[in-house]
Amino acid sequence: MMDVVGLRQRLEGHGQGHLMAFWDTLTKPQQKQLYQDLNELNLEEVCGFYQRTVHSLNEEHTKLDERMQPIPANMHGSVTRTPLEKITNYEEAGLREVSEGGVGVLLLAGGQGTRLGVDYPKGMYNVKLPSDKTLYQLQAERLLRLQKLAKDKFGKCGDIPWYIMTSEHTKEPTIDFFARNHYFGLEKENLVVFEQGMLPCFTFDGKIILEGPSKIARAPDGNGGLYRALRVSHGGFGVRGEVRRRTCWRTWSGGASGTSMCTVVDNILVKMADPIFVGYCLSKGADCGAKVVEKAFPTEAVGVVCKVDGIHQVVEYSEITLKTAQKRNPDGRLTFSAGNICNHYFTTEFLKKVVFDYETSMSHHVAKKKIPTVTAEGKTVKPDKPNGIKMEKFVFDVFQFSNTLAVWEVIREDEFAPLKNGDGAEKDTPTTCRHALFSLHQRYLLNAGGTLLDSEGEPLPLIPSRKELRWDECPVVVEISPLVSYAGEGLDKLVGNKKFTCPLAINEPARKIEV
Amino acid sequence: MMDVVGLRQRLEGHGQGHLMAFWDTLTKPQQKQLYQDLNELNLEEVCGFYQRTVHSLNEEHTKLDERMQPIPANMHGSVTRTPLEKITNYEEAGLREVSEGGVGVLLLAGGQGTRLGVDYPKGMYNVKLPSDKTLYQLQAERLLRLQKLAKDKFGKCGDIPWYIMTSEHTKEPTIDFFARNHYFGLEKENLVVFEQGMLPCFTFDGKIILEGPSKIARAPDGNGGLYRALRVSHGGFGVRGEVRRRTCWRTWSGGASGTSMCTVVDNILVKMADPIFVGYCLSKGADCGAKVVEKAFPTEAVGVVCKVDGIHQVVEYSEITLKTAQKRNPDGRLTFSAGNICNHYFTTEFLKKVVFDYETSMSHHVAKKKIPTVTAEGKTVKPDKPNGIKMEKFVFDVFQFSNTLAVWEVIREDEFAPLKNGDGAEKDTPTTCRHALFSLHQRYLLNAGGTLLDSEGEPLPLIPSRKELRWDECPVVVEISPLVSYAGEGLDKLVGNKKFTCPLAINEPARKIEV
Repeated sequence: MMDVVGLRQRLEGHGQGHLMAFWDTLTKPQQKQLYQDLNELNLEEVCGFYQRTVHSLNEEHTKLDERMQPIPANMHGSVTRTPLEKITNYEEAGLREVSEGGVGVLLLAGGQGTRLGVDYPKGMYNVKLPSDKTLYQLQAERLLRLQKLAKDKFGKCGDIPWYIMTSEHTKEPTIDFFARNHYFGLEKENLVVFEQGMLPCFTFDGKIILEGPSKIARAPDGNGGLYRALRVSHGGFGVRGEVRRRTCWRTWSGGASGTSMCTVVDNILVKMADPIFVGYCLSKGADCGAKVVEKAFPTEAVGVVCKVDGIHQVVEYSEITLKTAQKRNPDGRLTFSAGNICNHYFTTEFLKKVVFDYETSMSHHVAKKKIPTVTAEGKTVKPDKPNGIKMEKFVFDVFQFSNTLAVWEVIREDEFAPLKNGDGAEKDTPTTCRHALFSLHQRYLLNAGGTLLDSEGEPLPLIPSRKELRWDECPVVVEISPLVSYAGEGLDKLVGNKKFTCPLAINEPARKIEV
Repeated sequence: MMDVVGLRQRLEGHGQGHLMAFWDTLTKPQQKQLYQDLNELNLEEVCGFYQRTVHSLNEEHTKLDERMQPIPANMHGSVTRTPLEKITNYEEAGLREVSEGGVGVLLLAGGQGTRLGVDYPKGMYNVKLPSDKTLYQLQAERLLRLQKLAKDKFGKCGDIPWYIMTSEHTKEPTIDFFARNHYFGLEKENLVVFEQGMLPCFTFDGKIILEGPSKIARAPDGNGGLYRALRVSHGGFGVRGEVRRRTCWRTWSGGASGTSMCTVVDNILVKMADPIFVGYCLSKGADCGAKVVEKAFPTEAVGVVCKVDGIHQVVEYSEITLKTAQKRNPDGRLTFSAGNICNHYFTTEFLKKVVFDYETSMSHHVAKKKIPTVTAEGKTVKPDKPNGIKMEKFVFDVFQFSNTLAVWEVIREDEFAPLKNGDGAEKDTPTTCRHALFSLHQRYLLNAGGTLLDSEGEPLPLIPSRKELRWDECPVVVEISPLVSYAGEGLDKLVGNKKFTCPLAINEPARKIEV
């Protein structure tokens, strides 16, 4: 039974009576759908979100320049400035943590592949490696390999729980995809797929937007919706006790120990649960960590991890002036160089505080958008100009709550190649991703003592000549299965002092094209 | 009268009798052409070149790793590590040198725009700036502005002679283009267009290749052909005294003082005769200088300026191992980071020694190529595999003769955006060049206190958002005429505290779209 009068009263109480403007013209099923959608709306909450964020729309956007400080050097480590021995120690500490069930992975995978030209989850995208592996499969196999490395070293279980945050549109396809593929060898119980929230879109004066006569305009609540979703959604942890199923998960199951590694789905080179990063953060006693790459040039479109008035924050490039972006240290490096790649470390204690305490106090960010809107005649039109707002949280908004934030700078070409656009765009395409992976795996091979030969039997140059830089002419095709090597380790026995031709795929058991 | 018998004898004396294999089947005009071409060949010289270089083909390519040292820190300056005051001093010294007629420019412009998809000289390419200016025009106007800056500051003439090295195919179009455009305001006498040499192609066993029955296969002798061309070609200096026409040219006209700035045609951001670079090299007492950019990552396809066994050299990326390419200093920087961008400084004394003494002792580099060849039936075929060699010198080969080589590192996004490929390639295209220039000029504007607004009247972000990174959607279109500003100077009076919308073109008199 629908309590239409009660609903209307509640809506009007929050100034949202217009949402039922078309009620009398709707069919019964449409009425039912709209009633259900409106009834599920937590009006108190979403109108509260609007009230708390709308003022920022009319604020003069003050630049943060004067209030910014870089992360202090003692909390800004770099793989390029750290002796190998120390890195090995970090790695070992990270592997120990894995072996003890102390590391879990949170994957931000809400995005559809719209800009890639596909309508399925990005994780299911195949960039056309020789193996035809998808991003999800590469990530799954890296976790498998890491678990094995940890077990081999410390003789313990070391399962890594993997929580994948999807959205309304990507949840079911993601679940189906993993099931169809037998979880790529992972244990089913170690994989939890959950869904981020959606929020209604508002006009600038606080009215929830109707997209059609019986449909309200909604948008995902940003990758920072992670924390709320962990609290409220099915599969989330804590409140529902889902994660207590597996006793070997120290990560989130029991008390406050354990670490969570959070990353985005669309970086083809992502080192899942990177043990070096884990070990570095542990060594710093950090409650929160950010893996970064050195910002390449002042106007690069990347947020920087820094402090503002002493509080940790990611400052977006739109929030600073050119003068600050260009600022350099005496050694010539950019002062604000810690380029955020959305790869984070949280202690479980910190994450739980965020999820259960802090999250609700974090304001949304507001973005003006062109939001399809219903006309008085009941037609949906897309406006020419921004007509309303979307509200989002960002995953790094929680840095403000960190007492000891550690930054770990890695080499971009080793760890960061995002997949954003379809081929033909000038960056972040399937082709650039594929070749970033080939180049990395070529380096693994060379560093392990292998040699690549061209079709004439001559050694392939380390770097293709400028004239061969058209990717389709690039002679280097090397793919090493994550099941064989997580990050280059163990290859010397397979490839040392051996010669190979391209295309080269090293699987398990290794297919070696020896000459 | 043709001395066919004598020619045949001479050819056979050098093992090249096959070049007349088709003689009896040729028409009279063909015979005349071939006779002339063969007669002009300096057989002694070109066969000598072959003999001196061919051995390198069969040498094991030994890596240079063990023998390499970076340029010492005291000779490796960087604009990012130098206080502004010192940079101002360098600039002033450079401008003084210009004002005294002590600076000339050598432009390497032999290349046709084949990879750009055009059949005219690259310098005539128009990357579709709002002004439709070509690379040559941008360069000419930068020289004009620099001369004016020098004159304003020091009250002296300050003409900059500009020598443009073209090739067989680009010389006439280049001369016509400048004449048609009234030398873009430069004095005609300050522009000298000359032509680099061509060399026959050889088979691996030393036979000059016939491309057709009456045509020998030839190729340009590399950008290092500069030095020979300066000695022998019409317009070259020294032997013919061409440069003595202008008494205000101290550069090459008289004794040994003066400096030559050598650069490539296809860098849209090139700072012609950069006074800061001149002043820096003068301050170091260098005989030779290289402007470099910091190599971005170990496998970047760029040669590095360094020493090999104590001798200055550019080491190509194919000559080192991955281990050396990855080598880093304790501060995390690559040990071999001085990425060569083909922008050099020579004292006139050094250049004259090279041209008249050293050049002939420099060996060619050999590159295996697929060279179209005539069949026994007189047909021209393009082989599938390399069938012969091209011989080239490189402009930086002269570093080996330098006693005091200074390296000056500049910021890549400020000074280096090469035009190599047509649009659609993933780098170095007309579009990337255009946007590199827009971005630089936007920074000039912002640094001078101007503001850019979008079509809604809101300040344009310094950096376009990631989602707007498709170039065709990029809202920033700012072009500042070189006649108004060489490198950002003097703009504060024009744009300070003013607001502009895009597209913005600042010409003389400034067209300001003020709001």
